[in-house]
Amino acid sequence: MTRSDLIQLIQRKKSFLCVGLDSELSKIPAHLLETEDPIFEFNKQIIDATLDLTVAYKPNLAFYESQGLKGWQSLEKTMKYLNQFKDEVFTIADAKRGDIGNTSRLYAQAFLDPASSTLNFDSITVAPYMGEDSVSPFLSYENKWVILLALTSNKGAFDFQLFENAEGKKLYQEVLAKSSTWGNEGNMMYVVGATKAEMLADIRKIIPNHFLLVPGVGAQGGSLAEVAKYGLTKDCGLLINASRSIIFASKDTDFAEKARAEALSMQLEMKEILNTI
Amino acid sequence: MTRSDLIQLIQRKKSFLCVGLDSELSKIPAHLLETEDPIFEFNKQIIDATLDLTVAYKPNLAFYESQGLKGWQSLEKTMKYLNQFKDEVFTIADAKRGDIGNTSRLYAQAFLDPASSTLNFDSITVAPYMGEDSVSPFLSYENKWVILLALTSNKGAFDFQLFENAEGKKLYQEVLAKSSTWGNEGNMMYVVGATKAEMLADIRKIIPNHFLLVPGVGAQGGSLAEVAKYGLTKDCGLLINASRSIIFASKDTDFAEKARAEALSMQLEMKEILNTI
Repeated sequence: MTRSDLIQLIQRKKSFLCVGLDSELSKIPAHLLETEDPIFEFNKQIIDATLDLTVAYKPNLAFYESQGLKGWQSLEKTMKYLNQFKDEVFTIADAKRGDIGNTSRLYAQAFLDPASSTLNFDSITVAPYMGEDSVSPFLSYENKWVILLALTSNKGAFDFQLFENAEGKKLYQEVLAKSSTWGNEGNMMYVVGATKAEMLADIRKIIPNHFLLVPGVGAQGGSLAEVAKYGLTKDCGLLINASRSIIFASKDTDFAEKARAEALSMQLEMKEILNTI
Repeated sequence: MTRSDLIQLIQRKKSFLCVGLDSELSKIPAHLLETEDPIFEFNKQIIDATLDLTVAYKPNLAFYESQGLKGWQSLEKTMKYLNQFKDEVFTIADAKRGDIGNTSRLYAQAFLDPASSTLNFDSITVAPYMGEDSVSPFLSYENKWVILLALTSNKGAFDFQLFENAEGKKLYQEVLAKSSTWGNEGNMMYVVGATKAEMLADIRKIIPNHFLLVPGVGAQGGSLAEVAKYGLTKDCGLLINASRSIIFASKDTDFAEKARAEALSMQLEMKEILNTI
């Protein structure tokens, strides 16, 4: 998906919501456990209930890999289902990969390559620690995106991401400044946690226009209004992710309906925000 | 595997060689492509030919994930085969994972949990960028290990790993110092590339006894003698990885024989080095 397609999608749906498909088997409603593929069945019903309110879906790989072969199968089925709606949603492999160039090339193929990948995501999250040659292979597919970790939403973000050089520049700022020259605003985004919203003002000085994928609203306690206040651009420039607060809004047979209600409440708030641009 | 078991294994085999199973389908000898599972068949023959010379095997996940469901199946079969030799080899999932605590917990389950993992590795490589809560879930299984990226063997290592604070401390040094308090010498190792061997002297000042997993000898150009000179401890303290230089020593029907010859040549050099302790 191109940047202008994504912007149009946001305008059309009046939403910049990303739903995280952190579909942990032990949290899926009991009545689905008797179906042939409970994780896929769960995802399908969540997607059906939220597609008109959502611009992106983000399966987190850990929740699939932890189920071994069956989990990988559920992921393939989920992506096959989502890829029917190629023009209606942006897909994110939340995989946080990154390895030497020779290896990243294979990960890129696994997740992004339209010719050979059984998943064929629009984008993948990548960790920056290993530097340029670990990231650039993911940038070699047309209209596919790298979403690089910058400032994450967890407590451990403070351990190394704020490590500061003699000029007062922090590691995450160095990551933003250096990596933004590896790609462009049409193939790179950054992960910036909602729990650190006030830092978005500084981030926008380094990358004024790049899209940001913002986790941490909802279960992790971040605020949508705060994120928009500091991070919104004229093109929106934000994808706000919510996972558990939407997909596990109910653990009963009404889970899809409750997920829709949660997504709708976020989308209505987003519509107001988009009206201010 | 415990630290003392690993040390005994090294003494018994007179080797600290790790063979990287970077089993890329397009590089596997042609005559294997007609077998039911070429990647597994290749791995099995490599393992059979090198088991007495090797203390560790390290499948790199990218090479399996790039084959989708079939690749995951090949990995499960490879691990089932390797886990027959639990006391004879240490196994490393070269996965470079790392996510928020809630998610890392699932990755840990996927790769390490003896009760539920279909892979049941002894260890996993983890990226440090997201900090303590992204790493600690991997430390919760008895006798299982985290191998944390510190100073990698690729060119991109220079992009962020050498980022320096006002006191002249580099990021990888901060990673070593801080993370070594999260676990201990019996459940944490570090990745330090052979291409930066001279930096091992400084690294040993921070972590005098931890095992290091050292990639970059062979195809990437690092030297075994240099690594030993600066990195060897009284317990050895090193696992030297070679991947392509061993497994793709020949692309013909004699690939396993040639792989053994390469492994033997490294093991003989290692035996000499171990005799100096």
